[in-house]
Amino acid sequence: MQVELKAPYLLFLGDEPDVSHAKTAVGIAHWRPESCVAQFRLPGSGVDLGLPDMTPAEAAAAGARSLIWGVAGVGGKVPKHWIPTLFDAVDAGLDIVAGTHSSLTRIPGLADAAEKAGVSLIDIRKPPADLPVGTGVKRSGRRLLMVGTDCVVGKKFSALAIAKEMIDRGMNADFRATGQTGIMISGGGMPIDAVVSDFVSGAAEVLSPDNADDHWDVIEGQGSLYHPGYAAVTLGLMHGSQPDGFVVCHEAGRTMIEGFPGYRMPSISELIELTVANGRVTNSNIRCVGVSINTSGLPDGEREGYLGKIGDEVGLPCVDPVAIGVGPLVDHIVKTFK
Amino acid sequence: MQVELKAPYLLFLGDEPDVSHAKTAVGIAHWRPESCVAQFRLPGSGVDLGLPDMTPAEAAAAGARSLIWGVAGVGGKVPKHWIPTLFDAVDAGLDIVAGTHSSLTRIPGLADAAEKAGVSLIDIRKPPADLPVGTGVKRSGRRLLMVGTDCVVGKKFSALAIAKEMIDRGMNADFRATGQTGIMISGGGMPIDAVVSDFVSGAAEVLSPDNADDHWDVIEGQGSLYHPGYAAVTLGLMHGSQPDGFVVCHEAGRTMIEGFPGYRMPSISELIELTVANGRVTNSNIRCVGVSINTSGLPDGEREGYLGKIGDEVGLPCVDPVAIGVGPLVDHIVKTFK
Repeated sequence: MQVELKAPYLLFLGDEPDVSHAKTAVGIAHWRPESCVAQFRLPGSGVDLGLPDMTPAEAAAAGARSLIWGVAGVGGKVPKHWIPTLFDAVDAGLDIVAGTHSSLTRIPGLADAAEKAGVSLIDIRKPPADLPVGTGVKRSGRRLLMVGTDCVVGKKFSALAIAKEMIDRGMNADFRATGQTGIMISGGGMPIDAVVSDFVSGAAEVLSPDNADDHWDVIEGQGSLYHPGYAAVTLGLMHGSQPDGFVVCHEAGRTMIEGFPGYRMPSISELIELTVANGRVTNSNIRCVGVSINTSGLPDGEREGYLGKIGDEVGLPCVDPVAIGVGPLVDHIVKTFK
Repeated sequence: MQVELKAPYLLFLGDEPDVSHAKTAVGIAHWRPESCVAQFRLPGSGVDLGLPDMTPAEAAAAGARSLIWGVAGVGGKVPKHWIPTLFDAVDAGLDIVAGTHSSLTRIPGLADAAEKAGVSLIDIRKPPADLPVGTGVKRSGRRLLMVGTDCVVGKKFSALAIAKEMIDRGMNADFRATGQTGIMISGGGMPIDAVVSDFVSGAAEVLSPDNADDHWDVIEGQGSLYHPGYAAVTLGLMHGSQPDGFVVCHEAGRTMIEGFPGYRMPSISELIELTVANGRVTNSNIRCVGVSINTSGLPDGEREGYLGKIGDEVGLPCVDPVAIGVGPLVDHIVKTFK
């Protein structure tokens, strides 16, 4: 009942000139190179993922099963000169996977062409139908949830890095995506913020079902319990995830909730306290296992002292997942749950 | 942008034999007698609200503007022999208002007839379109939110009783409905649990907009922060409501979350603590102003001692809103916020 995509992919980059608008495609190519057959670019593109350039027909012949719309698009609309590529993809037998505001079904004729070709137009903002209300029933296996001091503080990156580190060590683990980019990267997941509020914790239960006792679901977080707009999503995801452990994600130097004037970000300790207070409703043994901080905004030479200070304050490993890696977090998780 | 109904009403009771399945109609007739023109019953009905019996045409002539489907219906389906009444209502120029699973639009011909007659088929489970993300911006006026130890512990009743007590005392107050029955009673509101989770706190902001400084919105609560299925709804409603005060609602004798084996209900003190911890994200001055308990399940003679004990524990007025009334709560609110 999760959203599921057909890998491997052709990554469609349009004629996007700016790589900063191609974060989704960059993320997929970085985290799932084995899922990427090729890229397809229109004249004028300024993005190169280092993949072979193929047309939809060539990519399909090489094994691709989905075209992934991997760039932001202009103002959320489908640029007219990109549309022929979408028809080519459908004709080549590829599903088309897109996210925010792309409105594939509103492109005249595309839905009919897809139906005729037996392929799907997949809007990954759309949650699966018939999601259940959360039951709160305890599931087998272990779960690790990312929680943030705000949105866009590195929750997805941290979860992907931790899952990769676990798998690299031979542990039994899966990344579980809760947002658009994460779903495209991992090929499945749950667009949790698009779920009707009555079913949010149920959707989170569906996302991380019963599993082997030694298995870890490493779950991408959403929002923040301190976010005046999105905390409901955060809480429902946490209750349904029943996390055994959580990692606090933060961006160094940020002090206010972005875009919400007057809203102070919590301290790491405050966030741990509120997360435990709420999380123990569905898992009485919930605990923080570490902190993951994006320190790229700090002046050179300050990182180590900054991470050390926070680590001392909370008595847990505190890393920058890019600069230092998440090894110390996974060490601590292994020790804590052995 | 809230759901809005056209009063006054004709209450449709079908041939429902059992008054316990007519709670919505009973609630409307009890709390809003001025909104009720008449009742309409089919042969076999066992329910009498004490209103004049009128056909849709008679009720319309007497001023009714909506037919309210005020009974549960059989298994959520529309009984076939009730359908002619719906067409009669549409022909008489009445909107039809219905809730759970009534599927008015699936009755062949009814939507067309409604369009032709210029009336609406209103499914009050359906949230307004284009709800915003919550902004967290502080609004003028005062807000009082009901919070529960579980679902179905008297939050709607308590809110209605408090709003009525305030209005009877000449205070400036409105009941704000967040669920189906509440919306039918008050003629408007927000079906908060049907809102997509990203927009729950925004929907709650829409429900209690800026108001006069001395005005109270008395807001019906939903779910419980301790509920493994519905806490996300509860939190989003609270964050968007930015309550200055909250009333804890409880049913005496209940110890477990109903329908969720293994889930213990919180103590009143635990619920106050978790509510303040979360609520202060959007209102740093949030405080509990009292406790409202349904003691109907207690043996005779135990009520007074029970309420006194809890009141002493939390240091706040503790009432049964039916047996004692909510006067002590409103006294305390007036004193606290003068």
